[in-house]
Amino acid sequence: MSLIDELRSALGATQVLVGADAAPYEVDWRRRFLGRALAVVRPGSTAEVVAVVDACRRHGASIVAQGGNTGLVGGSVPDSSGGQIVLSTARLNRIRSVDETNLTLVAEAGCVLQVVQQAAAERGLLFALSLAAEGSCTIGGNLATNAGGTQVLRFGNARDLCLGLEVVTAQGAVWDGLSGLRKDNTGYDLRDLMIGSEGTLGIITAATMKLHPLPAAQLTALAACSDLSGCVALLELARQQLGASLTGFEVMGAPALALVAKHFPQLPRPLPDAAWTVLLECADAHSEVQARAAVEALLQSALERGHIGDAVLAESGAQSRALWHVRESIPLAQSLEGPNIKHDIALPVSAIAGFVARTDAALQAAFPGSRVINFGHLGDGNLHYNLQAAPGLQAQAFLDEHEASVNRIVYDAVVACNGSISAEHGIGALKRDELLERKSPVALAMMKAIKRALDPHGTLNPGRVLPG
Amino acid sequence: MSLIDELRSALGATQVLVGADAAPYEVDWRRRFLGRALAVVRPGSTAEVVAVVDACRRHGASIVAQGGNTGLVGGSVPDSSGGQIVLSTARLNRIRSVDETNLTLVAEAGCVLQVVQQAAAERGLLFALSLAAEGSCTIGGNLATNAGGTQVLRFGNARDLCLGLEVVTAQGAVWDGLSGLRKDNTGYDLRDLMIGSEGTLGIITAATMKLHPLPAAQLTALAACSDLSGCVALLELARQQLGASLTGFEVMGAPALALVAKHFPQLPRPLPDAAWTVLLECADAHSEVQARAAVEALLQSALERGHIGDAVLAESGAQSRALWHVRESIPLAQSLEGPNIKHDIALPVSAIAGFVARTDAALQAAFPGSRVINFGHLGDGNLHYNLQAAPGLQAQAFLDEHEASVNRIVYDAVVACNGSISAEHGIGALKRDELLERKSPVALAMMKAIKRALDPHGTLNPGRVLPG
Repeated sequence: MSLIDELRSALGATQVLVGADAAPYEVDWRRRFLGRALAVVRPGSTAEVVAVVDACRRHGASIVAQGGNTGLVGGSVPDSSGGQIVLSTARLNRIRSVDETNLTLVAEAGCVLQVVQQAAAERGLLFALSLAAEGSCTIGGNLATNAGGTQVLRFGNARDLCLGLEVVTAQGAVWDGLSGLRKDNTGYDLRDLMIGSEGTLGIITAATMKLHPLPAAQLTALAACSDLSGCVALLELARQQLGASLTGFEVMGAPALALVAKHFPQLPRPLPDAAWTVLLECADAHSEVQARAAVEALLQSALERGHIGDAVLAESGAQSRALWHVRESIPLAQSLEGPNIKHDIALPVSAIAGFVARTDAALQAAFPGSRVINFGHLGDGNLHYNLQAAPGLQAQAFLDEHEASVNRIVYDAVVACNGSISAEHGIGALKRDELLERKSPVALAMMKAIKRALDPHGTLNPGRVLPG
Repeated sequence: MSLIDELRSALGATQVLVGADAAPYEVDWRRRFLGRALAVVRPGSTAEVVAVVDACRRHGASIVAQGGNTGLVGGSVPDSSGGQIVLSTARLNRIRSVDETNLTLVAEAGCVLQVVQQAAAERGLLFALSLAAEGSCTIGGNLATNAGGTQVLRFGNARDLCLGLEVVTAQGAVWDGLSGLRKDNTGYDLRDLMIGSEGTLGIITAATMKLHPLPAAQLTALAACSDLSGCVALLELARQQLGASLTGFEVMGAPALALVAKHFPQLPRPLPDAAWTVLLECADAHSEVQARAAVEALLQSALERGHIGDAVLAESGAQSRALWHVRESIPLAQSLEGPNIKHDIALPVSAIAGFVARTDAALQAAFPGSRVINFGHLGDGNLHYNLQAAPGLQAQAFLDEHEASVNRIVYDAVVACNGSISAEHGIGALKRDELLERKSPVALAMMKAIKRALDPHGTLNPGRVLPG
């Protein structure tokens, strides 16, 4: 029997897509990676995932797991061979259970992030992973890429919110590691090894995720800083004065906000003259009054110390959401402005101001008039440090010609600061060769040994993260 | 040249101990595991650790890394073959750097935990790992076993406080993974794989650890509950009302506190009639006034709901420390009472009350008059659920005769609740066979594949965690 016939017999013919039906699964949403699959399968249970792995192993086909297909590094679309099977987790979409006393929730891999957030909120609880794609990305994809987002400062990445996994291995076995335990020192940390491995070591089919009590109040504020050192000084003060109530600390450079103002003129622009704008969020377990007093005191002392110029404190939930909306509109404004070269980098917080000054200057010297659109999660040391061609230039041509040189300037500077070339997006296909060049050879050797040990026949997403 | 001669030539003769000089390193502090080493080496640098690994590999000898030798599962003492080399990290004891803006500290593996806490405190910062052995245990050992302690509820285990490692591999290569980054998605999570692997996958020589701002105030309270369900209800309320200010939530059963009262009659006994006593701690970034108001409000609402009977709120730092001292005296009081059978278990918080009721009854039926000394980190679902023989019996004889049956009753019940047989102590030699029996075969197969991949010749701590 052919592989496709076997898959049809295992899952039902309607859950095996080929041709035009498969097309949406063969390209990433940024349309940078276009592949071709032998078929797309949509298993409806963990047992059906096992059946897919078994059939693929027998036929020597490899498998690319795909959640919401919102990834940024081409890690969940097939290669161009036409021989891979895309395993969509779309039908693995049940919330299996919620334990309010243990503060845990078991979700299948294909659950959309927003659905998980809502399931928690309906019970008066918080699921603290939040990112721009939350309306379509899935828990499985969040874990496969160890997604970050806007609340990492307080609650951590996807990894830190996960207490257990159910995984189908390359051998087609099911590892039931759906522990809801805060502590478990019984052997090697397989959970964290699977998290962030981008579907190359196992297929995540379900996960036990941590919940938190909903805070009594959340407050958003903006502050204007004249330089990045001021933003870092404000961060230090905020960590000191707000402690764990500080749940978000985002930074936006003036060029990033100028793009938002240009493409979304209807949006508010509360601090139009700021070189740097900080968006900070405070959550309080007690009351809005207490939160407001704490944030006002923080802004007052930052003003007195000269870390900030002006500041705005949201007066309502609607105003808070409007401020966040400005922050979240930056990537879209960038897309509307034209193709650009994106970098998702992390640095020690203490190195950021120096890095940006040096790298801005180096890029300006090499590409006069180019614009650095710099924004991100300063509290985590994570910048989206993107380059847009000079206004007069044809953006796509600039990108085609100069992307490699731009990346070299940026990544050389990142590595010199002991930074990371992928803070929260992963490696996938996009950064695989860069990783080979930049990562410690000792670490690469360990990664390769682990890949061979757990997936000796290269069944799972070969060629992603590591060479195939 | 013999292995010992090679080691003497690499490290200097005074750093290679044999015979009586080696004896203190050959037995664990509870004196349950007595081995014999070919030699004990005390390298003074990462390069010297590499030299030891190289020499041992060439001679086919295996290596047991040892920090403060305070482990509870026999993971850091040699076996009885007389052929192993104990690698003491005692001289790797420098704090290499502190970055106050990045909130990180780089410590070598042999740094004593308390020294690291002090280095942070001197800079007005907090290093949030705290456990009974902190005066002698080391950061390397804390990471090798993923140590827990009393602040896990808020700050996590050793794993959660680590941002990067320097590791010498079984091949004698140095992996410099001393990242101080909050986010880094460049490949497999080697850091978390090494953490908790008990020296079987690599030798940790240094680590970058997370610091936190010191809170403005810390407050300790005790509350009396008539049953464990009341303690869990108080926990739910405390998480809700205190949020991240809740930094500790310990529980102590009456038999545990009775042992303390018997062996340390000079210690305070603030709630003498409580069936269960909760010790909770609140840290506040703002002020003691705010912390006190929050804890008082919590205790008041818990009283109104009937979760607790009486309560005591410490009036001073000295009083707080006295309350903690009672909690920390339980293990010593147990030792003074005589040999006992220890269990370091984790359960979903929602399962704890039922587990304890059923297992207490099963133990009482099997061993009439035996005493369950039950205490631990309820906020993390982690109990130290220990059995002391009935008062009249000869304790050592009881232990020799019944330990296996007691363990079977307890661990069967733990596994039935999806719990863990080792919450924070690890596996080592003590629980290796129990792990083989209890852990999912799929997980064991992955663990063995990883061990073979990273340490194919069994150079690193063979026979610990997994069979040799």
